[in-house]
Amino acid sequence: MGEKTLISRLPERGVTDRQQINEILDEGFVCHAAYVIENRPVVIPTLYVRNGDQLLLHGSNSSGLVKAVRDGSPLSVGVTHIDGLVVARSGFHSSANYRSVVVHGQGRILTGEEHEKALDVIVDILIPGRLSDIRRPTEAEIKQTSVIGLPLDEVSAKVRSGGPNDDPDDLKSDAWAGVIPLSVVAGDPEPSDDLRDGIPTPDYLQPNRG
Amino acid sequence: MGEKTLISRLPERGVTDRQQINEILDEGFVCHAAYVIENRPVVIPTLYVRNGDQLLLHGSNSSGLVKAVRDGSPLSVGVTHIDGLVVARSGFHSSANYRSVVVHGQGRILTGEEHEKALDVIVDILIPGRLSDIRRPTEAEIKQTSVIGLPLDEVSAKVRSGGPNDDPDDLKSDAWAGVIPLSVVAGDPEPSDDLRDGIPTPDYLQPNRG
Repeated sequence: MGEKTLISRLPERGVTDRQQINEILDEGFVCHAAYVIENRPVVIPTLYVRNGDQLLLHGSNSSGLVKAVRDGSPLSVGVTHIDGLVVARSGFHSSANYRSVVVHGQGRILTGEEHEKALDVIVDILIPGRLSDIRRPTEAEIKQTSVIGLPLDEVSAKVRSGGPNDDPDDLKSDAWAGVIPLSVVAGDPEPSDDLRDGIPTPDYLQPNRG
Repeated sequence: MGEKTLISRLPERGVTDRQQINEILDEGFVCHAAYVIENRPVVIPTLYVRNGDQLLLHGSNSSGLVKAVRDGSPLSVGVTHIDGLVVARSGFHSSANYRSVVVHGQGRILTGEEHEKALDVIVDILIPGRLSDIRRPTEAEIKQTSVIGLPLDEVSAKVRSGGPNDDPDDLKSDAWAGVIPLSVVAGDPEPSDDLRDGIPTPDYLQPNRG
């Protein structure tokens, strides 16, 4: 696998610690899931959560991703956080700071009680506290929404952090060097136009609640 | 392809306008590129820029991605910006606001002058103004860095924006509904520890320069 080769080639960027892998996964909620159709790759962004030792991918029943899993395609799922642009004194050493996890494996479409429970788990992990405020899903909604379980067995991660690693000869350069930090910021909750009067923003949606 | 099916199923989220597709691509610089090895998908994050009618993907010579393209694997490349978490009055209608582009096609490894020029183009598009401040790449660096050209011929895009689309019956709910906006923010440039004294941050790296 390309990801594994890369790790063995640049061992300092390989992360084997499971806790760090979980932290990377838990920070995001949109992954890029790749599957194979007729020997061609297809990648799509989709919602996910990590639930213990598996990813739960959220998909419409009729999506290509769900069909592909049903047809037996293995999956490759990537989650990446971009932490900065690394501005080195050469193009070669310019880079990005990032934390990324790639999971390979055979997904399975959850069914029955496991499926219904997973729909709750997704809401509960994405927005802790939300579940008790909203109505139960209908039978039709449950049928329309597939959940793919993907075990966290074959997982690799890469992390780059810190400043540029310039060639010693380049340190005398007149060029500025450093990092432009990048981060994802949540703004103030924006109430829906059709929100009834007098409904306050719940605590679990306040910025910096974590 | 899953992406296309999804577009025809939810036509309001399909974007065919080329300018909007270009804007989505131009806002990012890390994509998720998927390829196929032995009928299994592999997805990895990698740097890219859009240069006219093609994507330029940046990769180490020995990366799995570059090897796969050399071996003839088609590619599927996804770029996604997450603009918000859509908090609806039901789990079913909860969603994400996002803008995403997926490009399918056969990449080619650039060679010779086209390859060397592409390395400059990548720097120039990622950080306009930077190229004249840094030294030229060495022969060894050029050899180690591959550039994959992927034509923007088979491109699809999906965009979701705005508040939740709740069922009419749910509007009487006591639950808050709306959007948590999310955006990527650049912080102040952080000089490298080994930056020589007296080198100011160049204008082209100042926040809000655009």
